[in-house]
Amino acid sequence: MSESSTGPDGDAPDHGSTAPDHLVALRRDLHRHPEPAWREFYTTARIVEELERIGVDELHLGPDAIDPDLRVQVPDAAELAEWRERALEAGADPDVVEQLGEGVTGAVAVVRQGDHEQGPTIALRVDIDALPRAESTDDDHIPAREGFRSETGAMHACGHDAHATFGIGVLERVKESDFEGTLKLLFQPAEEVIGGGKPLANSGHLDDVDYLLAVHVGLDHPTGEVVAGIDGFLAVTQLRAEFTGEGGHAGARPEEGRNAVQALATAVQNLYAIPRHSEGVTRINAGQVGGGTASNIIPEEAFLQGEVRGGTTELRDYMQERAEQVITSAAEMHACDADITIEGAAPSATSDESLVSLVQGLAVDIRGVESVVHRDDLGGSEDATELMRYVQERGGQAAYVCVGTDHPGGHHTATFDVDERSLPIGIDLLTESVLRIARERPDAGE
Amino acid sequence: MSESSTGPDGDAPDHGSTAPDHLVALRRDLHRHPEPAWREFYTTARIVEELERIGVDELHLGPDAIDPDLRVQVPDAAELAEWRERALEAGADPDVVEQLGEGVTGAVAVVRQGDHEQGPTIALRVDIDALPRAESTDDDHIPAREGFRSETGAMHACGHDAHATFGIGVLERVKESDFEGTLKLLFQPAEEVIGGGKPLANSGHLDDVDYLLAVHVGLDHPTGEVVAGIDGFLAVTQLRAEFTGEGGHAGARPEEGRNAVQALATAVQNLYAIPRHSEGVTRINAGQVGGGTASNIIPEEAFLQGEVRGGTTELRDYMQERAEQVITSAAEMHACDADITIEGAAPSATSDESLVSLVQGLAVDIRGVESVVHRDDLGGSEDATELMRYVQERGGQAAYVCVGTDHPGGHHTATFDVDERSLPIGIDLLTESVLRIARERPDAGE
Amino acid sequence: MSESSTGPDGDAPDHGSTAPDHLVALRRDLHRHPEPAWREFYTTARIVEELERIGVDELHLGPDAIDPDLRVQVPDAAELAEWRERALEAGADPDVVEQLGEGVTGAVAVVRQGDHEQGPTIALRVDIDALPRAESTDDDHIPAREGFRSETGAMHACGHDAHATFGIGVLERVKESDFEGTLKLLFQPAEEVIGGGKPLANSGHLDDVDYLLAVHVGLDHPTGEVVAGIDGFLAVTQLRAEFTGEGGHAGARPEEGRNAVQALATAVQNLYAIPRHSEGVTRINAGQVGGGTASNIIPEEAFLQGEVRGGTTELRDYMQERAEQVITSAAEMHACDADITIEGAAPSATSDESLVSLVQGLAVDIRGVESVVHRDDLGGSEDATELMRYVQERGGQAAYVCVGTDHPGGHHTATFDVDERSLPIGIDLLTESVLRIARERPDAGE
Amino acid sequence: MSESSTGPDGDAPDHGSTAPDHLVALRRDLHRHPEPAWREFYTTARIVEELERIGVDELHLGPDAIDPDLRVQVPDAAELAEWRERALEAGADPDVVEQLGEGVTGAVAVVRQGDHEQGPTIALRVDIDALPRAESTDDDHIPAREGFRSETGAMHACGHDAHATFGIGVLERVKESDFEGTLKLLFQPAEEVIGGGKPLANSGHLDDVDYLLAVHVGLDHPTGEVVAGIDGFLAVTQLRAEFTGEGGHAGARPEEGRNAVQALATAVQNLYAIPRHSEGVTRINAGQVGGGTASNIIPEEAFLQGEVRGGTTELRDYMQERAEQVITSAAEMHACDADITIEGAAPSATSDESLVSLVQGLAVDIRGVESVVHRDDLGGSEDATELMRYVQERGGQAAYVCVGTDHPGGHHTATFDVDERSLPIGIDLLTESVLRIARERPDAGE
Repeated sequence: MSESSTGPDGDAPDHGSTAPDHLVALRRDLHRHPEPAWREFYTTARIVEELERIGVDELHLGPDAIDPDLRVQVPDAAELAEWRERALEAGADPDVVEQLGEGVTGAVAVVRQGDHEQGPTIALRVDIDALPRAESTDDDHIPAREGFRSETGAMHACGHDAHATFGIGVLERVKESDFEGTLKLLFQPAEEVIGGGKPLANSGHLDDVDYLLAVHVGLDHPTGEVVAGIDGFLAVTQLRAEFTGEGGHAGARPEEGRNAVQALATAVQNLYAIPRHSEGVTRINAGQVGGGTASNIIPEEAFLQGEVRGGTTELRDYMQERAEQVITSAAEMHACDADITIEGAAPSATSDESLVSLVQGLAVDIRGVESVVHRDDLGGSEDATELMRYVQERGGQAAYVCVGTDHPGGHHTATFDVDERSLPIGIDLLTESVLRIARERPDAGE
Repeated sequence: MSESSTGPDGDAPDHGSTAPDHLVALRRDLHRHPEPAWREFYTTARIVEELERIGVDELHLGPDAIDPDLRVQVPDAAELAEWRERALEAGADPDVVEQLGEGVTGAVAVVRQGDHEQGPTIALRVDIDALPRAESTDDDHIPAREGFRSETGAMHACGHDAHATFGIGVLERVKESDFEGTLKLLFQPAEEVIGGGKPLANSGHLDDVDYLLAVHVGLDHPTGEVVAGIDGFLAVTQLRAEFTGEGGHAGARPEEGRNAVQALATAVQNLYAIPRHSEGVTRINAGQVGGGTASNIIPEEAFLQGEVRGGTTELRDYMQERAEQVITSAAEMHACDADITIEGAAPSATSDESLVSLVQGLAVDIRGVESVVHRDDLGGSEDATELMRYVQERGGQAAYVCVGTDHPGGHHTATFDVDERSLPIGIDLLTESVLRIARERPDAGE
Repeated sequence: MSESSTGPDGDAPDHGSTAPDHLVALRRDLHRHPEPAWREFYTTARIVEELERIGVDELHLGPDAIDPDLRVQVPDAAELAEWRERALEAGADPDVVEQLGEGVTGAVAVVRQGDHEQGPTIALRVDIDALPRAESTDDDHIPAREGFRSETGAMHACGHDAHATFGIGVLERVKESDFEGTLKLLFQPAEEVIGGGKPLANSGHLDDVDYLLAVHVGLDHPTGEVVAGIDGFLAVTQLRAEFTGEGGHAGARPEEGRNAVQALATAVQNLYAIPRHSEGVTRINAGQVGGGTASNIIPEEAFLQGEVRGGTTELRDYMQERAEQVITSAAEMHACDADITIEGAAPSATSDESLVSLVQGLAVDIRGVESVVHRDDLGGSEDATELMRYVQERGGQAAYVCVGTDHPGGHHTATFDVDERSLPIGIDLLTESVLRIARERPDAGE
Repeated sequence: MSESSTGPDGDAPDHGSTAPDHLVALRRDLHRHPEPAWREFYTTARIVEELERIGVDELHLGPDAIDPDLRVQVPDAAELAEWRERALEAGADPDVVEQLGEGVTGAVAVVRQGDHEQGPTIALRVDIDALPRAESTDDDHIPAREGFRSETGAMHACGHDAHATFGIGVLERVKESDFEGTLKLLFQPAEEVIGGGKPLANSGHLDDVDYLLAVHVGLDHPTGEVVAGIDGFLAVTQLRAEFTGEGGHAGARPEEGRNAVQALATAVQNLYAIPRHSEGVTRINAGQVGGGTASNIIPEEAFLQGEVRGGTTELRDYMQERAEQVITSAAEMHACDADITIEGAAPSATSDESLVSLVQGLAVDIRGVESVVHRDDLGGSEDATELMRYVQERGGQAAYVCVGTDHPGGHHTATFDVDERSLPIGIDLLTESVLRIARERPDAGE
């Protein structure tokens, strides 16, 4: 990953063409305005701006794009207002922001071309949200050095800025091509909270989709490497526990409180200690915690925001059941109440071999691609599985493709960034895949 | 405490005169605008308004009232700006707010009267800050029912609204009296964070003080009861620990993080488990905790805001030393760093018998007083001890007096409130004490 | 306590007469053969040997001395057999050991003298059991240096070897005196497990007792100091928790077990963290724990032997209730069962002032006594309170006396030992108290 | 596994011949006298009895069989004496027991046959130790019902009684065959503590071994199934931590102790909470813990006997490093010392394909075999890997074979037992493997 120091203009190994300037600019603009789940006001408006420049047959926003009632982990009105305000200040189109209402973000764009009724309906899903974490200010970190570091406090630490750019790039290229059929570009919000997949899957836009592609950059694969089919999606449940006890003066009446922070601490210690499972991968994380109000008040309330995962749905369920028992008993131990909410969940899924073979076959010819991996495991979770399963259960086919990129820091860390040389590779690969699918109509069923 | 149901107008036991309407109004106005430590912009402005109405010889604000450099736990500029804004919206005098700058709140008022150079210098300290906690909305809660519930999110859950009112009431009464000498009214900010005592003690205003009185309402003593001398102040240290580890993707690379929330949880569990001490009272509270950013990111940072106390300074030090060891080891266990900051501290102190006797002697004759207790223990901490010790070490005398009040909920809880019948009792008691001290000049030295 | 270095032959301050050689020998013999609760076979036999030498009017052993059914924490038959065997090997009289059966240890001796029906019935209670802990081998430790260190693995780390010697010494002296009345010497077993007090109190021997004295050495009071009345007995409950889960192969099936050691660890952490209480002293100790069978088996069983104490019965009950909740919830959290058994308990008690005054009055004249303290707090627990309350509730009077002794290490530590110069002081003090009580018959009721 | 109810005489599916009566009797006799690691006095003597009946060319015991200095987790002299005594009482040959000395158990038997110098040297390793756990008394448990339940308190809960029987059975059969070469039967002690593999590997007996077979029954494979090559051995380290603090009286001086049980509990909680690893399987178990001496003494000492495992040596090392950090920090937190001893360790290993193919090829023709699995993962640890690696590193080949058996309870549980119909299957399979290896001399290297 040391190649990142040569940057996009490095004269080292030929990683193919550089991306068109306007797409690099788009990527960097999105990187500078990262917005976490359901707050993608600027991001959506910026995408819409590009879509209007390109021209699409249909553009769906707000409740026309996703089912608002299936959203989870939506911030409260005050926080949404703050992000709307920030988006407007950054130059977002007020009309678009208006349409996104109380956090119904994301967009669906449809292009019909040629004798489209004879052609297949192909969907490409790209996710667009950022993570609620600070970005590195280190001078070695390219966005910091080159002036497109986050201005919002959040961070594109998982490459969704590149994903959105892929979407726009593919649309441009398909519009210029001889593609015949329907292409749906799904700009999905709230992937990081496992929140946008379900509302998008159930929007109606997937009901007639024959082929679905989803894409991710990086995943520890270097620039120039492509993985034709990603599997090994961990099933996941995100949950929130609220502990409620009773306050009191910590000095004068220590015995009267029912200490919610003690319940929280007991829960955290024992959550990580849930026994490993012999049948496969399990995960647990108490990703965010908090509680209490002041040094001298016995904490009356505390919360824990966490997740459990499993290599299969059964393993995830094992973790979830144990986690709920731990939380309930920890509360009881300290005479507190615990209220557990399931905030998001995604199943596992598998990429269809017909699509994986097709992508693998064409990838070798993409400029800049030096290595093609047939299949690899994600080792994480993704609510793209909601869309993949939706399409597969209705007879369609789906695959999740990885476009390698040199990333200096790991995913979700402060120094993550994408190597921009992977932008044209991804756009070429996905465009070519769409065109070849439309031509070959691979069919696993026959 | 069921007497609170009879309210100020109950015809049950004679608890003395009712307070003048304008003082009840003042108390309720302050109750409606509670401001935590270093944010007392409205409160100070409101007090200044009263002082100007009454007329004082000197009025000190900002760096003239307290030493700004000795403050601890001062909020950041953004939060101060927010509270300043809120104070102005509530009608605070912009000139006063301007003078309080970046949280240099509180006020010192001086009255010189009669042949004041022949008379003693007497100081009365009242604290004015609120607690960062929500107030009850229950209809049984008088402030809720009668429309003066908190409008700021904070709460006067310890009666400092009454203390400030005592100060104004005493000043009015002394001005009308034949008092000869100097009276200094110390409106101290930031008592709840053990933060205002030291900056006020070292302001210079106490250097010539011969007698210091401090006062508190309630403390589980009912309306009509007075405690002439409060002792048993627990020595206290408030501390903050910041845990820093390393983030990472909780699903894909669980082993790479250094989990600050695990360190925090281990610390909390073991802090409360520090062994009790055979020589006296010890206390520990992890009053506020937090950490992490999202369900799927290994928590990189966490914090703990807490306090240790002891019946003596030695016992407090025992707790502090053990607490620091627990925090350090918990961090080390999870490969995190821990940064511990001491945020506030107060020693213990004792009320001088000469003053306690004087107050006890006159209390029985105060209208509404039905019971006089010689001495009682606080069982909590107070940075009035900083002022008491400062005066005592320079040859002066000090006492801490309690004015009982029926309070429906305990101190620091959501349903705490003062019985307004205790307002005139406190004002009478303190005024009479000031006058008698000036006349008798009790001297512990003989 | 540095005086201990001068030893019994030091020529420093006059601490009075030395004890008769045979009593020093007795003390050291008992020290060499320490036996924990219900295992005092050698100890009882050795006491009986002395009683027979002296001659008493009645000698009660086994079920004649204590009520066997009220014993708690009696070891199993195998362990009792082992200790019986060891006692016999050390030279205990087989007839006496036989009478003590399955751990019904201790003895009651009665002396009637003069016109005893006209005199009062006075009881002196001394406890005789040792602690299950190793003794120091350090050369600075006198028993190690002088060859009377423990040979049993247990240790007289609380001075009960001196207490038993006091009993014998007092009996000798009273026999030689003009005492008129009945003297009952109660050699109580199993004090350390709070187990012998109740069976002895309910033996019938206390039913006619007018005055009860109990005695303890040390308690941080130096040689030459006497405390006429010990109070501040902490109420105590000793309890045992058995956790039962399910085993399994830790490598092959980690998820199948229900881990009793995880339940135990969670319980221990949270037991020590039970909040302190504002109304007084509380204590908690998980004094002995264990669990599991092998490194590669998930622990199926675990136990915790512990205690809670309180300055009052109510405070003890607060701790007990919380402790039971912690244990139950910890088990539940790990899908284990918890079985809690109350193993011993003792209330608090107060020394009667009439006896305390009498002892205080005569103590100053005892040779070697340099300082007499009226009353002091134990700060620990004692099942002598069972006997004191039994006598007091039937109209009698009781006091608990402390005979100071320089002890190099603290009570219950490996280097505890009594300064043998305190032996004659204790014997003189207690003998004189018995004689004076018989003469003066103090009566609290008047 | 319900087939176990049909028992060895069930007329259901043909599981092949029944084992000769004397071998069934041997298996049951060993089952009745289970002996944990280094205590296999009766077991070794009983095996020697069989070997002498059969007649072997060399018989090695004690230091001639294994290197005594490489043993770990050897019990102390007292416990060894107890088990020796028990073995003698059960009828073990005193001469053999004498030769086994202080726990140098196990045996190596050598048979040379035909033109043995032309033939290969083949070793078969069977382990013979039991687990320190109680056996079910349930009537559904065949050993309980049929009278050969454990009489020692330990239990053959992993089938090593069958392994030893396999060894004897194979030796009998090979002696009757036309085998030409050298067969070494390795009766290995102390597998369950990962203790016997290294001393046996380094005994010298493996230096000339060309082929090594090891065998295990069950592993969740039913009677009639054979696995030709077991892999997936988890690398393991067994460790012991001793915590040393300071005692004291829990009631009188709670602050003076340094509580080893608190350190232990903190360690246990955090050991299980060591983060999972993305690269593969990790395991942790605090299999046995203990500490403290009495309810009222602050625990001065505590211990933890545990293990860490990993799918690779690197993963095991990750767990070990973290575990040591947790233990060290937990001790430090409670001002205790921690002393960590590595008690046993085994690497991972792989079965050579040449042998696996050979076994797979012949297994289908063994009577009673209904299903042959090529390879499977153990998911546990085994110190057979020490022997496998020793042979492989010297140019030899090794494989670890599984003979399925219906086992009602899981390995290491109270109701584990082997289905005796698997005895003849195992003996046939291993005998046939030895004969075929000698004939075919498979060679992976060439």
